[in-house]
Amino acid sequence: MEHARSFDPKEFRSALGAFATGVTVITTRDEDGSRVGITANSFNSVSLDPPMVLFSLARSARSLAAFSRAEHWAVHILGAGQEALSNRFAKSGEDKFAGLELEEGIGGTPLLQGCAARMQCRSAFRYEGGDHLIFVGEVLALDRSEAAPLVFHGGRYALATRKSADLSPPRATADAAGFDENFLGYLLARAHFQFYERVRDHVARHGLDDVEYFALSVLSVQDGRSLARINAHFAYTGQAATAAIMTGLCARGLLHEERRGGEVLYRLSAEGRGLTLQLITAAKALEAEVLGRLGEWDAASLRNLVKQLVLLTNQGHPHPWDAAAAA
Amino acid sequence: MEHARSFDPKEFRSALGAFATGVTVITTRDEDGSRVGITANSFNSVSLDPPMVLFSLARSARSLAAFSRAEHWAVHILGAGQEALSNRFAKSGEDKFAGLELEEGIGGTPLLQGCAARMQCRSAFRYEGGDHLIFVGEVLALDRSEAAPLVFHGGRYALATRKSADLSPPRATADAAGFDENFLGYLLARAHFQFYERVRDHVARHGLDDVEYFALSVLSVQDGRSLARINAHFAYTGQAATAAIMTGLCARGLLHEERRGGEVLYRLSAEGRGLTLQLITAAKALEAEVLGRLGEWDAASLRNLVKQLVLLTNQGHPHPWDAAAAA
Repeated sequence: MEHARSFDPKEFRSALGAFATGVTVITTRDEDGSRVGITANSFNSVSLDPPMVLFSLARSARSLAAFSRAEHWAVHILGAGQEALSNRFAKSGEDKFAGLELEEGIGGTPLLQGCAARMQCRSAFRYEGGDHLIFVGEVLALDRSEAAPLVFHGGRYALATRKSADLSPPRATADAAGFDENFLGYLLARAHFQFYERVRDHVARHGLDDVEYFALSVLSVQDGRSLARINAHFAYTGQAATAAIMTGLCARGLLHEERRGGEVLYRLSAEGRGLTLQLITAAKALEAEVLGRLGEWDAASLRNLVKQLVLLTNQGHPHPWDAAAAA
Repeated sequence: MEHARSFDPKEFRSALGAFATGVTVITTRDEDGSRVGITANSFNSVSLDPPMVLFSLARSARSLAAFSRAEHWAVHILGAGQEALSNRFAKSGEDKFAGLELEEGIGGTPLLQGCAARMQCRSAFRYEGGDHLIFVGEVLALDRSEAAPLVFHGGRYALATRKSADLSPPRATADAAGFDENFLGYLLARAHFQFYERVRDHVARHGLDDVEYFALSVLSVQDGRSLARINAHFAYTGQAATAAIMTGLCARGLLHEERRGGEVLYRLSAEGRGLTLQLITAAKALEAEVLGRLGEWDAASLRNLVKQLVLLTNQGHPHPWDAAAAA
């Protein structure tokens, strides 16, 4: 029975894109001594004993001859921070290795650094695969790091986030029309307040309240601002400092007032700056502890997603990543 | 030059685990008419023209004979919600297809439903690969959905989170010791407050403040609680209702007081329940709008990660997903 294909190459690419993959850079040394490298996501495991892996390379690829001749090649599984390396080796260029710190592997194969894993291979088989060739290699040496993986999916880079088994599903009894523990607003509020609760402990130990802490933090980024400009930076919290609060901080020796053209500007005193840095350092230590328990990979994904949410929900507050916002 | 291998099978598996993959279920029909299916992450693309894909199967696999004989097989790229299907086909069992709703594909191949993509293939080549065989198939038909992908990495299931290109890196000028816009505490606070700011607009329009809204929400989950128990449920916010606030809500006809054994319990009136549900519905519509802009996949990852964070940072507040916490 003959089946005419009912899809076009674009649809095939799109369907392949539904399969998430890591990203690898595969390198070898050509017989003239030149270094060759390509970005490939067509890598996969083949055999455990002997240890073997494969990748596919287009017959039209400029590097085909080099890989066909090569006795050895090395697979570099890229980490989440190596997007630039992936892009560099995906383009054809004169010397893709220029400026990179390299090691020399088996057979002179150039080895890249900082990857999630590296496998040095002896070329074992080369097979036909339509417009590609399939290279199977026996793994001779490997090393790996704990780097989070770079993921490719649907034509875009992605991060992998561990699925938690210990998260209960929504309660079956929850009233569909009512409050729901999976409501993102609730989750964000709990995550924020539970995290901030511990920061607040430090802040309170120094006799400061939330608003005083916010005002000092804003001045630690850029000193010498008016009350209005200080408040603009934490208007998103729905809270605001008053002139009385600022005067109180001055009286405690944490701030100085400075009059300029009818405007009152506030500056941190040495003591105020010291205390603020101490509080920020404590908050950062708390963050490190929490993120350490979450794990480096999920921490990177979480930060990435919460940043997107901050941009998506911003209704005119100063842009958090805009240098001008510091002014 | 001979190179003795300097790693053991466990290390090899661990290094392979650094390469993220999707998860597939590959099915065929054996010559006796029985349905055969396996879970595999050794899938990958091979050729674009003709469209070809491959997977590897252990020589020791029970299904090897069936796939070796098969003229057709089908690859199902699983979606994020199909972890159970992956587990089912990963185990050997008498009838892995029992109870599943199936379609019949080319050559009688059983097709599963609800996948991210499906490719029906004609077996094209079978190659040696150490302790595995490599099956290359020509894709004859395909279909796909927009399901988020199931990812496998480091021996665990994962979700893929799109990397945003539009997020600026930390400002080069940022004081390493000082405040930093990538500080998670700051990001969470902004995400929470910016989201809540819009909920607050609705709440304020009905003449309620935050604490009044929190108290009404808690009662909408379970009615008839004392002030202390109501407050326990939003103690994480650092705010608390007072008897005076509750009396005010009663005076406005939103709550009823009920004395039981010396304790005052509060119940929503019909009007109070109606208003609370209206506010919760507005908050859910806001959530849907924000998550819609984030995209279904990232929304799932975000919720998953923020939930983990809530669990990790909880210092004794009622457990958010514990049914008992509603009591």
